Amino acid sequence: MGLPRVAGFRASGIASGIKAEGADLALLLSDRPAAAAGVFTRSRLPGAPVLVSRRRLRSGHARGVVVNSGIANVGLGSAGLRRAEAMCELAARAVGCGGRELLVASTGVIGEPLPLAKLRRGIPAAAAALSRDGWPAAARAIMTTDSVPKLETSRYRVRGHPVRVLGIAKGSGMIEPDMATLLAFLVTDAAVSPAWLRRLWRETVEATFNRVTIDGETSTSDMALVLANGASGAPEVRGARSPGARGLREALLEVCTELARSLARDGEGATKLVTVEVSGARSRAEAERAARRVANSLLVKTALFGQDPNWGRILQTLGAAQVRLVLERVEVRLCGVPVFRGGGAAGPAARRRAGARLGRPEVEIAVHLGAGRARARLWTCDLSYDYIRINAEYTT
Amino acid sequence: MGLPRVAGFRASGIASGIKAEGADLALLLSDRPAAAAGVFTRSRLPGAPVLVSRRRLRSGHARGVVVNSGIANVGLGSAGLRRAEAMCELAARAVGCGGRELLVASTGVIGEPLPLAKLRRGIPAAAAALSRDGWPAAARAIMTTDSVPKLETSRYRVRGHPVRVLGIAKGSGMIEPDMATLLAFLVTDAAVSPAWLRRLWRETVEATFNRVTIDGETSTSDMALVLANGASGAPEVRGARSPGARGLREALLEVCTELARSLARDGEGATKLVTVEVSGARSRAEAERAARRVANSLLVKTALFGQDPNWGRILQTLGAAQVRLVLERVEVRLCGVPVFRGGGAAGPAARRRAGARLGRPEVEIAVHLGAGRARARLWTCDLSYDYIRINAEYTT
Repeated sequence: MGLPRVAGFRASGIASGIKAEGADLALLLSDRPAAAAGVFTRSRLPGAPVLVSRRRLRSGHARGVVVNSGIANVGLGSAGLRRAEAMCELAARAVGCGGRELLVASTGVIGEPLPLAKLRRGIPAAAAALSRDGWPAAARAIMTTDSVPKLETSRYRVRGHPVRVLGIAKGSGMIEPDMATLLAFLVTDAAVSPAWLRRLWRETVEATFNRVTIDGETSTSDMALVLANGASGAPEVRGARSPGARGLREALLEVCTELARSLARDGEGATKLVTVEVSGARSRAEAERAARRVANSLLVKTALFGQDPNWGRILQTLGAAQVRLVLERVEVRLCGVPVFRGGGAAGPAARRRAGARLGRPEVEIAVHLGAGRARARLWTCDLSYDYIRINAEYTT
Repeated sequence: MGLPRVAGFRASGIASGIKAEGADLALLLSDRPAAAAGVFTRSRLPGAPVLVSRRRLRSGHARGVVVNSGIANVGLGSAGLRRAEAMCELAARAVGCGGRELLVASTGVIGEPLPLAKLRRGIPAAAAALSRDGWPAAARAIMTTDSVPKLETSRYRVRGHPVRVLGIAKGSGMIEPDMATLLAFLVTDAAVSPAWLRRLWRETVEATFNRVTIDGETSTSDMALVLANGASGAPEVRGARSPGARGLREALLEVCTELARSLARDGEGATKLVTVEVSGARSRAEAERAARRVANSLLVKTALFGQDPNWGRILQTLGAAQVRLVLERVEVRLCGVPVFRGGGAAGPAARRRAGARLGRPEVEIAVHLGAGRARARLWTCDLSYDYIRINAEYTT
């Protein structure tokens, strides 16, 4: 395998002192202008970095991203915007590019100002540390209460050119005293037109990061960015029929799927990764609604923590989801074991078998609604004592 | 005060053996036909008792209600319907009325058949135990994991006639292995036309029981019923201008408000009753959506458990609620203390004061959105280790 690298990209992660300890500042940089696209939180109170990066992406190009953890730069109005711009400016000066060529992201405490003095010292150090092998350090520097760094790679070939895709993400940790944030940054040496990259990225995020739900919360700072710099030498992808279009789509999907699953697996207090599959829905929207309802149900999540094959709670949640279902055709399977089918419960043997399988680190709830052909899938985690501990025991 | 009584009504609560221990069967009976109305779960998978009682209420009249706890009679299709009908029939025979004059409710485990043999012995015993003073026993017999029985009364006068309103309810307990159910039964000796009672009841439930949210779940068995038998001798209320109309409305509201607050206070694992007030919304619907989002937010509920005056989590939740808000005019108060106002956080002194007040058994989150004049209120509770324990530690 070797170290994860992507042609023309360098990365770094260092400790700047924004956090009391550990790395908290990352730089990702392309040696040439790259096509760039982003998907952002739908919150009506987005953080300053979201506003700044969204605006800069209108050009369809960027050279890199500067990211800090520890303070989210949210809730401070125009003062926050000025600090987000200043952070980009400091980074641009340190790496020698235009100030508008960099994107910015922050995650951490809200309502506190970004400490520019620390960034003035930290950003040049992060620039000096940039390296082709800096991705694991960058993945660590963007973490908040994530328990492990998240980094995934994929590769494919187009007309003899090897193309690489690499992604890092941080999740569903909370940072005192505030909120979960999803940040994901992908880089590839594929050549892609900005218009196609924007479309492809929206589809990829919808199918992967938007399929993760930890506790039904939406952060003010969520952001997923992709940069494609063309350094592989492969021909430019401009649409679905371009050479390499399929390879690119699959590689992005693969990296983002693995990152999304890592985020769910590492949800706060999680003891298991849970996949919720809903099929047999009347429409895609109803499949999605039913899956979200099941994935966010506290009763279902606590039952999974307790390894209880409780189809009753799943049925109750489906009943409340206001989707069409035909009880006689409804089927609920837990880790492949049917526990409710055709309007009746499976016997105690099936229940026991399902209960034993719920002890695995990856479990699956599959529901067929019997009302149509649409389906949806989500990843989530269980709800444990540790979620309460992490989120209640911080006291100001 | 004396014992809670309502003219012309009797009640009882006994142990029939459906539960391993404790009372589990209640009868409520009027000595004459009463106007009756009901509001039921919006679940698409309602239990058999919901279907039977809803159908019977089309007549606008009923004599009483037979209720069991321990088994919910949900998820068994036509076999469940037959057992719910049989339960009414047994009760009608025991009390000497027509089988179609009784309503039925069940709460408890889903997917298991109602044990008719136990009901055949228990229902005559419950009928023999009927008494004017049987309300506390009935309130206890409908409990599942509620920690206390819930009974409230009110009274008013119309042209010299004393009129009484009495209600019992059970909440937000879970019963192994299944779900929270809200059951509420009100009786009054007011005389009310069925049409007016239906309208008044819908409004009352909307303003009280529908303002409670424990964990965002909707049960398959939720049901709130009211019976008005006219035994007070007061003139019949047929509309808003009838004599006594205002007294009736206020007494129903008072009893249901107190019951609703008890339900929230006694939510599973709750350590405090939480009132969420949203004002300054663009519309009633947006006020309601914002309040529900805050009341159901795991991050907010765990912060309350931890007595953390965390306005950041409240702002985040409001941002995600997709309602209009004007940040410069947004105000967040915790137990009366402003902690965020006009786009900025209050100082550490206010935070400390708010934190201290969050230790009280009843706390309030008040949010002004700065976008209009609409408001909404909800009652909920915090989220503690005990919620996880209650809901995870049952294993089949």
